[in-house]
Amino acid sequence: MSGVAAADRNPQLGRNGELLHLLSLEGLPAEVITHILDTAEPFVSIAEREVKKVPLLRGKAVFNLFFENSTRTRTTFEIAAKRLSADVINLNIGVSSTSKGESLLDTIDNLCAMNADLFVVRHAQSGAPHLIASHLTATGRSAIHVVNAGDGRHAHPTQGLLDLYTIRHYKKDFRKLTVAIVGDILHSRVARSLVHGLTTMGVADLRVIGPRTLLPGRVEALGVHVHHDMRAGLAGCDVVVMLRLQSERMKGALLPSAGEYFKNYGLTPDKLALAAPDAIVMHPGPMNRGVEIDSAVADGARSVILPQVTFGIAVRMAVLSIVAGPVA
Amino acid sequence: MSGVAAADRNPQLGRNGELLHLLSLEGLPAEVITHILDTAEPFVSIAEREVKKVPLLRGKAVFNLFFENSTRTRTTFEIAAKRLSADVINLNIGVSSTSKGESLLDTIDNLCAMNADLFVVRHAQSGAPHLIASHLTATGRSAIHVVNAGDGRHAHPTQGLLDLYTIRHYKKDFRKLTVAIVGDILHSRVARSLVHGLTTMGVADLRVIGPRTLLPGRVEALGVHVHHDMRAGLAGCDVVVMLRLQSERMKGALLPSAGEYFKNYGLTPDKLALAAPDAIVMHPGPMNRGVEIDSAVADGARSVILPQVTFGIAVRMAVLSIVAGPVA
Amino acid sequence: MSGVAAADRNPQLGRNGELLHLLSLEGLPAEVITHILDTAEPFVSIAEREVKKVPLLRGKAVFNLFFENSTRTRTTFEIAAKRLSADVINLNIGVSSTSKGESLLDTIDNLCAMNADLFVVRHAQSGAPHLIASHLTATGRSAIHVVNAGDGRHAHPTQGLLDLYTIRHYKKDFRKLTVAIVGDILHSRVARSLVHGLTTMGVADLRVIGPRTLLPGRVEALGVHVHHDMRAGLAGCDVVVMLRLQSERMKGALLPSAGEYFKNYGLTPDKLALAAPDAIVMHPGPMNRGVEIDSAVADGARSVILPQVTFGIAVRMAVLSIVAGPVA
Repeated sequence: MSGVAAADRNPQLGRNGELLHLLSLEGLPAEVITHILDTAEPFVSIAEREVKKVPLLRGKAVFNLFFENSTRTRTTFEIAAKRLSADVINLNIGVSSTSKGESLLDTIDNLCAMNADLFVVRHAQSGAPHLIASHLTATGRSAIHVVNAGDGRHAHPTQGLLDLYTIRHYKKDFRKLTVAIVGDILHSRVARSLVHGLTTMGVADLRVIGPRTLLPGRVEALGVHVHHDMRAGLAGCDVVVMLRLQSERMKGALLPSAGEYFKNYGLTPDKLALAAPDAIVMHPGPMNRGVEIDSAVADGARSVILPQVTFGIAVRMAVLSIVAGPVA
Repeated sequence: MSGVAAADRNPQLGRNGELLHLLSLEGLPAEVITHILDTAEPFVSIAEREVKKVPLLRGKAVFNLFFENSTRTRTTFEIAAKRLSADVINLNIGVSSTSKGESLLDTIDNLCAMNADLFVVRHAQSGAPHLIASHLTATGRSAIHVVNAGDGRHAHPTQGLLDLYTIRHYKKDFRKLTVAIVGDILHSRVARSLVHGLTTMGVADLRVIGPRTLLPGRVEALGVHVHHDMRAGLAGCDVVVMLRLQSERMKGALLPSAGEYFKNYGLTPDKLALAAPDAIVMHPGPMNRGVEIDSAVADGARSVILPQVTFGIAVRMAVLSIVAGPVA
Repeated sequence: MSGVAAADRNPQLGRNGELLHLLSLEGLPAEVITHILDTAEPFVSIAEREVKKVPLLRGKAVFNLFFENSTRTRTTFEIAAKRLSADVINLNIGVSSTSKGESLLDTIDNLCAMNADLFVVRHAQSGAPHLIASHLTATGRSAIHVVNAGDGRHAHPTQGLLDLYTIRHYKKDFRKLTVAIVGDILHSRVARSLVHGLTTMGVADLRVIGPRTLLPGRVEALGVHVHHDMRAGLAGCDVVVMLRLQSERMKGALLPSAGEYFKNYGLTPDKLALAAPDAIVMHPGPMNRGVEIDSAVADGARSVILPQVTFGIAVRMAVLSIVAGPVA
């Protein structure tokens, strides 16, 4: 795939195929994903050093624009940016400018005028980070970058990348793997991003497991195999990715009850026994123990849930430094 | 004007006329204003560098004391202080000490005891920053400084200074200019500060334009010309400063409706055509598009609204470094 | 006392008696307290320098975990950590993870996975910092440390230490002193921590003064003398520590009224005259002027209330650098 062709389809890629913004894993070429994962590797060891800092973004202004509250994700980006020596400004926009009736793009224009270098954007509306990136391009601000920290049900690309990093770390070659994603695929931007990423990286067998009410209608079109029976779906899997069940689903019409859900789709030691003997268990957090996952599994030997968090900081450092760091 | 005489009238000036606190542009000598604007100039170019930092306030503690919520203004001061390498502590006091019944001056005493160097103060009550500065003087803490970030309807001096910077940047000599300020003069601390600043800098013709209900009674006493007809007021102007119409005014008894207001006092391309051909358009933000300003003007070639924001960071860096920086 | 024996009783002490966590002054050996106070001394002068920073925690990640809102205490720790050059992440957990149903220890596990170095913990529940420290030990994370910033009615050890620092600064030898703590001993973690600290440091005569309804039942067992009559209790005291009367006490059944309380237990100049001629007056802040203390005393020559705040920053710098700083 040539860089120019990629740029046509991806506002996140520049003319030479370089990463300008990270908006979605959909359509992101395998070589870009591999470059991000490779860049993240040395950052994992930086976090273990006495002084956990590198000067790659020194003097740069990173704005955490959270139009939707998420302390956990905001914290991971704040840590990543500070370890790169950036100046970080946290803005919870829900309670500020937009409450004064200012439009999203007026807010962005103002922050650009303050010489922002990078926006980390979380928004309840799908497409908001894309809208911002297009606006930056249209107004000729090519030196300012956008990283999507979760938009509506659309995408959560840094979560997808840290999942890919974790899988590669433990299982090496994507092309030989069977991966199952279990739970509320329908409402999950985590699942969407991971499906796109794994498909691009050429995973051998990608399965989604869940009740009919929590699976999108045309999900097979993404190249995945659908299972409603969890035991059948887990058979022989190398990687099991559990999704968080949002509490509003438990109360709504889509599910009978949290207890019933756990019985059918909760990951217990006996269900996990159906997967490959060295299967790893992942979860994006925060976990609902006893709803989608049993504590014996969450805290067990196969769980790589906490390493995911550690790799998540390194992956975010990689993304921030690739889009906004010094030109190599 | 001698420095000693100035100190008598201005608690913000020291014995030799040097700036100790920035409380108001009222009574601030032209040479002090010019010194601030001159100091800001190199800071504009720092913001365009790869590493946007200078060490002028390294190791100093700057407290953003916001007794009134204003993410936008707080952010500009946070960026300015961080670019000067200060340590910035954000305190939203509305939700903390004062809710425990502690007095304003007890809060200040405590923060001084934590070795604060500078307070950036936003307060709904006019005169609060002045009260704090007087208290610091009375208790012999001459090394601790106050910058007013907006107090009630009284003053917003850094906004006034960035407006002056913008006008000087595009129009050079204040003494030859006709400037119109349009809108809700009555409730605007932005307008008050700018009127004082422009008068001090000797602007040739200063006009205020608005409906009777939104103009102060004795406004001519400030040396300005009053216009209720916007077209007449704009004739031949070099600078047009639009004010934000607070939404509470639109609903209140002072105005018929937002639509009616836009018809009479909204800046449209046809009204702007009455001003000088090279007139610039300013606005303190956030804008109400379609209320006080038409998008065709806000985003048009004459608009310098975003450069105002850029200059605002540089002007705040200048103020902070002049009051709290190393002695030259 | 040998280090090994101390470690048996104190999860906050390591095998060689070194400070791993600061959870409580109860059971903390006198030599550890003295080491903290000695370490704090040079930090007092750092705060008076032009550049108020030392690189002892450079590149370390300090998390302010405030499960209970306290801007004042959070600010003191934020300043202390920044003066040690740490990266500080503020988390108000009440509004984040736990609202998503995540358990306290899952939150801690996640932050550890982000390579946290130190947790400053404020929690409404007594024992929460202890629980976290035990969890870190049980999971083999000996390089991560906990400092209690106030837990329920249990302990507020850095407040106790800054009180000890203040007393030592002005009065030198604990063994010759008569100290009175006045007010709501029953609900005060400040009082509990100070009683343990003063007892350990061998104060000659420790008195608590308050109405029966605000004194714990078995308070004499701690080695203190109980007074219900303030004038009798103050006689000859070298140090008078006033406690804040929480407003909920004033409204509740425990007290007749704030006015009545002030008459009986408010510190006025005439009551203070019964103490030693050079007695010092302390208060943890924020003060209720006219309830537990008269302004003439609070702002008078004997008051060391603001120096307490200054010493508090230095003591917190000492604690943070001892538990998380470079090994000497």
